[in-house]
Amino acid sequence: MRAIIASRNSILRLSKYKNALNRFQKLGYVRVFSDILADAVGGTSAQVRKDFSLFGIKGNKRGGYNADELLGKLNDILGKNTRQSVIIAGAGKIGMALVKYKGFENEGISIVAAFDIDPAKIRQGGDIPVFPLDELKAFVKTNDIRIGIIAVPDIAAQQVFEIMVSSGIKGVLNFAPIRLKETADVVVNNVNVELELENVIYFVNALERTGSK
Amino acid sequence: MRAIIASRNSILRLSKYKNALNRFQKLGYVRVFSDILADAVGGTSAQVRKDFSLFGIKGNKRGGYNADELLGKLNDILGKNTRQSVIIAGAGKIGMALVKYKGFENEGISIVAAFDIDPAKIRQGGDIPVFPLDELKAFVKTNDIRIGIIAVPDIAAQQVFEIMVSSGIKGVLNFAPIRLKETADVVVNNVNVELELENVIYFVNALERTGSK
Repeated sequence: MRAIIASRNSILRLSKYKNALNRFQKLGYVRVFSDILADAVGGTSAQVRKDFSLFGIKGNKRGGYNADELLGKLNDILGKNTRQSVIIAGAGKIGMALVKYKGFENEGISIVAAFDIDPAKIRQGGDIPVFPLDELKAFVKTNDIRIGIIAVPDIAAQQVFEIMVSSGIKGVLNFAPIRLKETADVVVNNVNVELELENVIYFVNALERTGSK
Repeated sequence: MRAIIASRNSILRLSKYKNALNRFQKLGYVRVFSDILADAVGGTSAQVRKDFSLFGIKGNKRGGYNADELLGKLNDILGKNTRQSVIIAGAGKIGMALVKYKGFENEGISIVAAFDIDPAKIRQGGDIPVFPLDELKAFVKTNDIRIGIIAVPDIAAQQVFEIMVSSGIKGVLNFAPIRLKETADVVVNNVNVELELENVIYFVNALERTGSK
C-alpha cells in the first residue's frame, strides 16, 4: 500500500464511510454509490470520490463500488485488518467504561491493560488487568504497544503523557480536559465531553436569549 | 447581557479559557494575562483578546485581567451561573459512565434522569432514576428540560433524537456513531470515541510506514 500522510479530516471521513458501509452491508447492500455514502456521513458525493481517489480506490461510474471490496480497502487503509493493542492510563469511571465498551472490540481494537496510581484499583481479574502506573513503561516496551489512552484527572495528565512518550507510545487519545504539551513525533487526539456539552448548553441558551425557536 | 451568536470554535475556546482560569485560581493567581491563557489552551494572545473583546470583556494592558472577574464573566456567557438539568437516553455502559462522572457536577451540569427501552435497566434507586423510554417526552415537558444526551446504539439513535426534538429538547450531545438528520432549531454536537481512536491508530501506522520517527 502507498504510504500516504492524509489530513486528519479525510481520515475521519474514511472512518465514517467505513462505519456506514458496515451498516449498508448488514442491510444486504452489494454495491454502493458515492451519493448514498455522502448522505450517510453528511458530505457530498464529489467529496467521497475525491477521498477515495486520494487513496487509489476506483469506482465504476455505472455500478458504483462493490461493498465488500470497498470495505476491505478502507479497513486496510485504516489499519483495521490487524488487531490493535491499546493500553489505558486511569482506571476510574471513564477509563473503566472504555474498558467495558464493546464497540472497540468490534473495530479490532483491544484494550489489553490499564494502569493506575491508586493501589485500591490494582487487580488481576475482571475484564482486563489493572497494574500500578510505574509498570506502564516496562509493559509498553515488552508488548510493543503503540497506542495509549489517557483517562486520568487533568493534574496528572501531562506527567502520564510524558511517561507514555518515553515508553515508546506514538499515538494518544486524551480524555483529560487539558492541553498536553505535544512532541512532534506523537499523534494526540482529544475527546472532551465536558467542553462539547458546555458548547451545546451555550448555544441553546444563546438561541433562547435571541428569541429564536 | 448582549445576546451573541458566536461561532462554535470561539465558544469552545471560551470553555477552555474558563477551565484554565479555574486551574490558575487554584494555584493562587489573582491576575492573569492573555499570553498565559493562550499558552494554556494552545492559541495566541491576540486570539484571546479578540475572543474576549467579542463578548465585551476588557482587560488592562498593564495588569491583564482580574481572575475572579474574568471567571465570573466567562461563566455568565457560558450559562454556568445557573444549574443545567440534562437527561440521557440509554442506560448502557457509556450512559451510566456519564451519569457517574463527577466532572459534570463540578461544571454545574446535573443529569437528572436516564431513559432506556430495556425493562431490566429501569430502576428508581441508584445515582439517578432510569425510566422507560416512552416516559421521556412527558418528563422533558413537565421538567422543562432543554438538553439531552444520546447514548443508545446507532440503530436507535435517529428515532431517539426525533423523540427528543418532539419533546422540546433544543440541544443534543450525541455519542452514537451515526449522523443524525438534524433540524434547524436544534443544536447537535457529536462525540465519537471510536472514530477518534481509529484516527490516532491510522496516523501512527502511516507514520511508521513512511519511516518517520
